Amino acid sequence: MRIIIIGASGTLGSKVTAALKDKHEVITAGSKSGDLRVDITSPESIEAFYKKAGNFDVLVSVTGSGHFGPLSSMTPTDFKKGIDSKLMGQVNLVLIGQHYINSKGSFTLTSGILATDPVLYGANLSAVNGGLNSFVIAAAIGLENGVRINAISPGVVEDSPQYFDAFPGHVPVTMDRVVAGYIRSVLGAGTGQVIEIF
Amino acid sequence: MRIIIIGASGTLGSKVTAALKDKHEVITAGSKSGDLRVDITSPESIEAFYKKAGNFDVLVSVTGSGHFGPLSSMTPTDFKKGIDSKLMGQVNLVLIGQHYINSKGSFTLTSGILATDPVLYGANLSAVNGGLNSFVIAAAIGLENGVRINAISPGVVEDSPQYFDAFPGHVPVTMDRVVAGYIRSVLGAGTGQVIEIF
Ligand SMILES: NC(=O)c1ccc[n+]([C@@H]2O[C@H](COP(=O)([O-])OP(=O)(O)OC[C@H]3O[C@@H](n4cnc5c(N)ncnc54)[C@H](OP(=O)(O)O)[C@@H]3O)[C@@H](O)[C@H]2O)c1
Ligand SMILES: NC(=O)c1ccc[n+]([C@@H]2O[C@H](COP(=O)([O-])OP(=O)(O)OC[C@H]3O[C@@H](n4cnc5c(N)ncnc54)[C@H](OP(=O)(O)O)[C@@H]3O)[C@@H](O)[C@H]2O)c1
Repeated sequence: MRIIIIGASGTLGSKVTAALKDKHEVITAGSKSGDLRVDITSPESIEAFYKKAGNFDVLVSVTGSGHFGPLSSMTPTDFKKGIDSKLMGQVNLVLIGQHYINSKGSFTLTSGILATDPVLYGANLSAVNGGLNSFVIAAAIGLENGVRINAISPGVVEDSPQYFDAFPGHVPVTMDRVVAGYIRSVLGAGTGQVIEIF
Repeated sequence: MRIIIIGASGTLGSKVTAALKDKHEVITAGSKSGDLRVDITSPESIEAFYKKAGNFDVLVSVTGSGHFGPLSSMTPTDFKKGIDSKLMGQVNLVLIGQHYINSKGSFTLTSGILATDPVLYGANLSAVNGGLNSFVIAAAIGLENGVRINAISPGVVEDSPQYFDAFPGHVPVTMDRVVAGYIRSVLGAGTGQVIEIF
């Protein structure tokens, strides 16, 4: 299959890429790295990206960021960061990408544990992840030509120790389990699933 | 208590207002109606609104809209409508309002059944409602001074027959049950709850 991975250079994306690249044609992408460049916060950049990428079977998005900080000082502008990047960025990869993806293709987006299990300072990412999970279950019944869509919702991962203090008592998930979630979405047959890895 | 109701003139808001106004000081608000005017899509309008409203104990938001239509023709601009109105509008009522609300006060936001039970054409509102539900569980642990927050998530209501065709097989919920959800959030002691009325 021809597989596009957005965020392929990242902590999660690099392991997902390693797991898929031997048996598939993988095109890596990021805003500053990869075979092709795309800024997911810009619909125009996404459109240009798909035009350049050509036909594909699978889009894996392992990217998007948000604001992390106390609610008491969180502003509308802070909150908009996660909305524009991790939420709208990934949603727009689907809204625009549905017109370029091969029939029976699939989209895999990345949300996260904060959707259902909040931590202090995480209100922006909770909202973003919850929005992504609900988008995926709805988009699954709206996508045409047999195209599938799932979300991977990981807990804090073992390869990101810099986040451990912000997730007290969370048991970091192994990268093997995280990668398995993406494989299940890409090579499996499910759609409208939120695959929780925690 | 001093209770602000945004969207007080609406299908849901008018019944919620009727149920609260006899025993409490209720201030109604909308973009074109009510005791005070506010446009929830504008953070500046929200800030000015709270300055004018003065101290309050309860903020009930029964407002916000989104895009409803086929995924196949849904654009990033369409999607942004629900993000700017029903999602960011209500989130910003909390982010800004936390600096004006009395201690031990409460916020009650409105999401909806599409967060977990999608219908065709509803992908934007699914994402918005899912985002709101996850925001509420996270904001509940971030709010200070004993301030509470809950979301009411109604199914399609009996007073909105214009939506019935878009919700095949959904049993419309009675307005009495919907109003009871808001009362439970406002007069009860719960926080971080998604109160499903369906
Ligand atoms: N790390 C965790 O513990 C954890 C847990 C749960 C969920 N997640 C989620 O998993 C995803 C990836 O996290 P990560 O820790 O692997 O992040 P990361 O290491 O910071 O990697 C981010 C990746 O996204 C790319 N990127 C950044 N901005 C972009 C943009 N505007 N447009 C396109 N690509 C962009 C980066 O490449 P360039 O530098 O080339 O742009 C990089 O490849 C995020 O959604 C995160 O919230 C992470
Ligand atoms: N109806 C249903 O079956 C149903 C089911 C589940 C969830 N919901 C949710 O419940 C909420 C209310 O729905 P509804 O059917 O009662 O809506 P509605 O009848 O259209 O009423 C909307 C209310 O919001 C106000 N409003 C509109 N735009 C505004 C803005 N930019 N800023 C401030 N106020 C604004 C309106 O007053 P002005 O005209 O003065 O602005 C009106 O009072 C929505 O979030 C909806 O998604 C509805």
